[in-house]
Amino acid sequence: MARTGRRPGNQDTREAILAAARKAFAERGFDGASIRAIATSAGVDPALVHHYFGAKDQLFVETMQLPVNPADFMPKVIEGGLDGAGERLMRTFLGVWDSPAGASLAALVRSALQHDWSARMLREFLLTQILRRAMKEFGVDPAEAPQRSALVASQMIGLAMVRYIVKLEPVASMPADELVLAIAPNIQRYLVEPLD
Amino acid sequence: MARTGRRPGNQDTREAILAAARKAFAERGFDGASIRAIATSAGVDPALVHHYFGAKDQLFVETMQLPVNPADFMPKVIEGGLDGAGERLMRTFLGVWDSPAGASLAALVRSALQHDWSARMLREFLLTQILRRAMKEFGVDPAEAPQRSALVASQMIGLAMVRYIVKLEPVASMPADELVLAIAPNIQRYLVEPLD
Repeated sequence: MARTGRRPGNQDTREAILAAARKAFAERGFDGASIRAIATSAGVDPALVHHYFGAKDQLFVETMQLPVNPADFMPKVIEGGLDGAGERLMRTFLGVWDSPAGASLAALVRSALQHDWSARMLREFLLTQILRRAMKEFGVDPAEAPQRSALVASQMIGLAMVRYIVKLEPVASMPADELVLAIAPNIQRYLVEPLD
Repeated sequence: MARTGRRPGNQDTREAILAAARKAFAERGFDGASIRAIATSAGVDPALVHHYFGAKDQLFVETMQLPVNPADFMPKVIEGGLDGAGERLMRTFLGVWDSPAGASLAALVRSALQHDWSARMLREFLLTQILRRAMKEFGVDPAEAPQRSALVASQMIGLAMVRYIVKLEPVASMPADELVLAIAPNIQRYLVEPLD
């Protein structure tokens, strides 16, 4: 799951764009940050930002310095729709976190939780790159999608904390298959059952 | 929910004992740390540790510098047994975190997640001061209690992250009553339903 794609361009210019983008996403969120404003702040033409990084989504993923790219695993979760979605989400999540990339993810989450601006980056990332897309592809009622996806996020983030950071046993060392059986039904309830 | 109880003794001696205790709990865990070893490390008699802090539980709670004492809210969760335990746990948890003490708790959790030793302190605290006791009082099968309580912890820690630290909407600002309806059934499943 290495980062892929072209990485063209002058290294200093790339870094200047990434620094401006990080600041813009942290201050204004994903939706509020524009490629135009990021380009102005970096002192380059907007076309150059597109040329180097592609769409705003890709630029955002680059600023997060993730060891994995959501585009690599999201299709596995989404295909098949809502039936069994809780189980696929759990399997995919544990597959990524139990892999060698897991240690980098844990470090990234630890660091993100330290400051309001970095916690906001994490929130914007979860919201715009993972949750909104999955809810849309699943066809979840848009009126319910934010609540359902935030509840799913609460369970997944808590699982990451307990298994990889706080390391509370037996969750810290249980086989992934057993964790899937234990947790997937709760995720599925958040996705499809009435919650009030 | 201010910290209560006697706080007798010479301030320097108290601080020396607390520093020794913090180190012992972080290095050896709650069960592995002895009052005798803590006293030796602080250069005082074990009887003085008991005199200043009472039992090892109380000393541990003091080292965590919590804005709330589990002894104040645990009875509310435990009374009534397993019936409705998920709901009482959620109400009590949200009552504490939504109170003025919540900001201090969020700061404490953020800080605890930074280092392996402080994450271990948090784990030992959850395990010995909250989870084990609740499972015992609830009469959960001891063979299943560690898994059930770690799963409950994963949901509660994730809720704290999403509501108070990452601040993902609508969970960040939903009324507590609605969150209880949405989440309590999942907690209840972890406590009483088959998980395999």
